[in-house]
Amino acid sequence: MKAQKIAVLGAGAWGTALSVIWASRGHAILLWGKNASRIEELRKSRENSAYLPGINLPPEIDLTSELGDCASADLIVFAIRSTALRETAGALKNTGINPDSVLLSCIKGIEHGTGKRMSEILADNFLRHTFAVLSGPNLAAEVSRGLPTATVLACTKPDYASELQNLLGTPRFRIYTGGDLSGVELGGALKNVFAIAAGAGDGLGLGDNSKAALVTRSLAEMVRLGTKMGGELRTFYGLSGAGDLVATCFSQHSRNRRAGEELANGRSLEEIASLTGTVAEGIPTAKSAHECGRKLGVETPIIDQVYSLLYEGKAPAQAMEELLRREQKAETI
Amino acid sequence: MKAQKIAVLGAGAWGTALSVIWASRGHAILLWGKNASRIEELRKSRENSAYLPGINLPPEIDLTSELGDCASADLIVFAIRSTALRETAGALKNTGINPDSVLLSCIKGIEHGTGKRMSEILADNFLRHTFAVLSGPNLAAEVSRGLPTATVLACTKPDYASELQNLLGTPRFRIYTGGDLSGVELGGALKNVFAIAAGAGDGLGLGDNSKAALVTRSLAEMVRLGTKMGGELRTFYGLSGAGDLVATCFSQHSRNRRAGEELANGRSLEEIASLTGTVAEGIPTAKSAHECGRKLGVETPIIDQVYSLLYEGKAPAQAMEELLRREQKAETI
Repeated sequence: MKAQKIAVLGAGAWGTALSVIWASRGHAILLWGKNASRIEELRKSRENSAYLPGINLPPEIDLTSELGDCASADLIVFAIRSTALRETAGALKNTGINPDSVLLSCIKGIEHGTGKRMSEILADNFLRHTFAVLSGPNLAAEVSRGLPTATVLACTKPDYASELQNLLGTPRFRIYTGGDLSGVELGGALKNVFAIAAGAGDGLGLGDNSKAALVTRSLAEMVRLGTKMGGELRTFYGLSGAGDLVATCFSQHSRNRRAGEELANGRSLEEIASLTGTVAEGIPTAKSAHECGRKLGVETPIIDQVYSLLYEGKAPAQAMEELLRREQKAETI
Repeated sequence: MKAQKIAVLGAGAWGTALSVIWASRGHAILLWGKNASRIEELRKSRENSAYLPGINLPPEIDLTSELGDCASADLIVFAIRSTALRETAGALKNTGINPDSVLLSCIKGIEHGTGKRMSEILADNFLRHTFAVLSGPNLAAEVSRGLPTATVLACTKPDYASELQNLLGTPRFRIYTGGDLSGVELGGALKNVFAIAAGAGDGLGLGDNSKAALVTRSLAEMVRLGTKMGGELRTFYGLSGAGDLVATCFSQHSRNRRAGEELANGRSLEEIASLTGTVAEGIPTAKSAHECGRKLGVETPIIDQVYSLLYEGKAPAQAMEELLRREQKAETI
């Protein structure tokens, strides 16, 4: 594959962090954001102070708010909100996209109503392109500071996976390759829902023992639902499943864990969004995951409680109490 | 089974915490410690200020330093250091132990040289007794404060497992039963070694992304070695495996994580032991696990680095660097 021109769609924390590390490898990056005045500001300040404060944008990063500027890229990276992907993909399609470009999704979400993964939304719009996904325990603040990080990249074409690994990996951002796009995407999406529950436990002061129990049952629930949705079992026990789950449930940097914590502290979803300047992906994903669980007949007690917490006004203390007071019985994974 | 008299051997943090929660259920507990003057002090102060400060010992707990006082108990619980078990079991045998007593190990370790689990050491000494093990993400400081906790109890006799569950479980200390003693014991023992590596990463400031990657590979290594040593795969993905691993690697309360952190901060093992008043179990277990890996021909890169760190004078930064700089490749679990 050819990759002289890389476009990154989404100037949030993750799109910016990826641009920074790839620029540090010498790649020319075109970073796209929808909001023209914000992009103009980034171009001047060379810092994404809203989402990735303290990180300088190197000169290899060019900025644009014109989607059409990205259409000719050899590699188009998607790092926008999951709920904006279908619209953005449709708009990109209308720009006359390079037919040879590889489309790489770094978005963690599941579409409402359809239950589709991000690469499936891309496939609905771009019939003949090559698709790849990248997901793992990758807190943007750490990645952009050069702290050691590992991630998983899966691609519909195995030889492209190795090429992308060489192109995008660095000694501090190690990329492992795989072929299970479904498993990689589903692990990354579902863990955000579980992190909201873990955060609610933090807010209620339930401690590390109960969080560990919750994370263990979250992993089992991820496996149950994720394999029914087409992911491979072993993918969920790897970096993009278990690894991302533990990072998100335990890290102080995690927006989804934080959202759960703030909910338990009595804040509303609107207050949390304005506090963090963003909607944590676990919030829309809880709805999609809840739909998928019902549709596929999978028991999802943790997702159900998070759904009730977010969309049915259930009190966090009540939701966590119901999760924790289940009967003592034989352990089943 | 009859369980009117419960003896708990070991007046450290865990033995004391278990005594406190079981006393809160109304059970009469005889708590044994080897050091007569320390036991006398606990008897007077009704607080284990060295290992479990701030927790009052309720009147249902009686204290003794005479092992013979415990010999008639219906349930004898072992919560001493792993390296002291063979000697203590031998001494207990000589006291004329109740032939019907159930022996429950709550110790997380593997014997040097033999590679034996704690229940196997008990079986070497007590041929006709019933054995059980209890292990899970159970930080003593949280359990003793009544924070919600879940754990796994496995027993050689399934019906005894349910009886012990009813006898020892509480709404805040939920017990799940299982039959895989090997898996439950090995998960609990091995995770302490991995927690030392996780703590070294903390001391070096490597961040949550790399810790999540390390924990994921630790889980895979636990599964690889643990199944070769006789544990069942699914046990390692449950509370006593993955659950205990994440609690110990992430909690600020974990002694093993702390030991790794202090090593990375430049302290010696002797300084750490005197700082914490105890030897973290992961230190002797690293040696046993390293031996077992060699004997069984299992690849154990994380255990090997911890072993080098502890017993061969390797610098923590060097050990972590070698763990993190492995080649980018396909992800294999």
